[in-house]
Amino acid sequence: MNRQIVLASRPEAWVTEANFRLVEVPLPELKDGEVLVRNLWLSLDPYMRGRMSEAKSYAKSVAIGEVMVGGTAGEVVDTRHPNFQIGDRVVGYLGWQLYGAAEGSALQKVDDRQIPLSAYLGPVGMPGVTAWYGLKEICQPKEGETVVVTAAAGAVGSVVGQLAKMAGCRAVGVAGGAEKCRYVVETLGFDACVDYKAGKLWDDLKAATPKGIDCLFENVGGEIFDALLARMNAFSRIALCGLIAQYNGEPHPLKNLGSVLINRIRLQGFIVSDHLALWPRALQELGQGVASGRIRYRETIAQGLENAPQAFIGLLKGANLGKQLVKLV
Amino acid sequence: MNRQIVLASRPEAWVTEANFRLVEVPLPELKDGEVLVRNLWLSLDPYMRGRMSEAKSYAKSVAIGEVMVGGTAGEVVDTRHPNFQIGDRVVGYLGWQLYGAAEGSALQKVDDRQIPLSAYLGPVGMPGVTAWYGLKEICQPKEGETVVVTAAAGAVGSVVGQLAKMAGCRAVGVAGGAEKCRYVVETLGFDACVDYKAGKLWDDLKAATPKGIDCLFENVGGEIFDALLARMNAFSRIALCGLIAQYNGEPHPLKNLGSVLINRIRLQGFIVSDHLALWPRALQELGQGVASGRIRYRETIAQGLENAPQAFIGLLKGANLGKQLVKLV
Repeated sequence: MNRQIVLASRPEAWVTEANFRLVEVPLPELKDGEVLVRNLWLSLDPYMRGRMSEAKSYAKSVAIGEVMVGGTAGEVVDTRHPNFQIGDRVVGYLGWQLYGAAEGSALQKVDDRQIPLSAYLGPVGMPGVTAWYGLKEICQPKEGETVVVTAAAGAVGSVVGQLAKMAGCRAVGVAGGAEKCRYVVETLGFDACVDYKAGKLWDDLKAATPKGIDCLFENVGGEIFDALLARMNAFSRIALCGLIAQYNGEPHPLKNLGSVLINRIRLQGFIVSDHLALWPRALQELGQGVASGRIRYRETIAQGLENAPQAFIGLLKGANLGKQLVKLV
Repeated sequence: MNRQIVLASRPEAWVTEANFRLVEVPLPELKDGEVLVRNLWLSLDPYMRGRMSEAKSYAKSVAIGEVMVGGTAGEVVDTRHPNFQIGDRVVGYLGWQLYGAAEGSALQKVDDRQIPLSAYLGPVGMPGVTAWYGLKEICQPKEGETVVVTAAAGAVGSVVGQLAKMAGCRAVGVAGGAEKCRYVVETLGFDACVDYKAGKLWDDLKAATPKGIDCLFENVGGEIFDALLARMNAFSRIALCGLIAQYNGEPHPLKNLGSVLINRIRLQGFIVSDHLALWPRALQELGQGVASGRIRYRETIAQGLENAPQAFIGLLKGANLGKQLVKLV
């Protein structure tokens, strides 16, 4: 038997556990060209909040009663595709369930000898490529510039800052809480981190960005984004990756939009899946960084599929440090 | 004697006539290389509101007691520069005054035989190049796309829509009042115009942009911009040229920032004076358009320097149709 978490209802504002339901169903039967995967790891990511909503977005919503979507890493347990063998390690997009069947073309074989399997859901996966694309292609930081990233202790933000350091930039994180900020500076090697929960956001931001901000990698939105806008330099760039503070029906009045005009800012929203052609190059660089230890990362691991909803709710509230995963086995 | 309008005090929120003072001073004495110009036309433009304020911006503030800055068109009445003769028509940046002296290099000789002198302050001047740059270089509209411009009956907006039509686009204006909208459609040839004062902004906007918006040329900000954000298509572009609704200390809470992310919008603030290298090409195209009658324009003319403050206050409130000028003689 397979176990799945399906969408039971759409959230009104904050997601609750009642929005999900655990169900048991038979294992899928394979068609020609398909592969059956036992998922070992489930990735939890902020974009899933959008899929729970019916509002128009770049991807279609999960229907009520449908398995929640999500990235997974696992092992092949049955195969009707010539390129896959039982025991192969694969990453895919099989959703919140213990087993999933997919066309072979929708799965990617990975090598977990030098890079742990779970890292293919983090720094060597979608979050890593998101960081890489937004920083390199949109922000395009030059040596000596100041790069700020919000949600700096998260799966994406932690990679952004480390890539910025490799590019010779001053890397400044914004994160919630002293523990996260300590991790960002001491373990990840950022130059500074602003704890937005410390109650003096503006003063701390000014101190951490004495030369202003040239590149902002924005994951959060809300009043933090507003404050950051007021620190942007002329001809600076903003990669808009997420607005996690605004995913729950509480729009923030933006006071400093004028900065975009006055400072001739280029603000670009992006979705990493629009840029699949660049993934191989990005994944190669990220894989080398992780294998060599130059890119560090941490994981927050929930145990068992049944705990995925609670872990996801925690992610939306910033309870995790680094990549939020669910260990399924 | 020369007459000037100087900045008497900084506005608290809305500009008032008390912020200005009319003074009489002797005519300036020319140094070698300088030219004395009798200004015939003074251009009034929204950017001047920024110069009245002490807030950090892309250009320095006008000091209290200093002549208000502004573009001018006039005739040479004295010259100590070999390239200029008495009677030459010139445009420059001589400010709110009847006479101004400048280095010859800061003045541009113009030909007013096919193009009226005042047009060099409008469609064949800074406002025209602003329209040209924002549309062509930032929005980059493709044939068949929908281009929306706010303040569509103004000096910049009117050119944006006409250039969009020449590029094979659907041109939609947003303007305040039925008279302006009639002008935008009937005289300027836009496909549609939304009167934001008609009380059903969202419905009218939907009707005018049945295929959404691919390019937005934004001059206004505030709740109109917020509504437009919700009509933007995937991979659309926004040229942020002005935020005239927000120049008076009333920031608007922006509800639809998420559209920038969901639709992968590129939003670019710009200042036309950053791009001087492109002015000659732009001015040539605009000049041909005006001389041939393909680019139409209208002027709202205040008579006499002493009426400049009142006309400027009207401009900030949208009282003008087309280019707001002051006729000085």
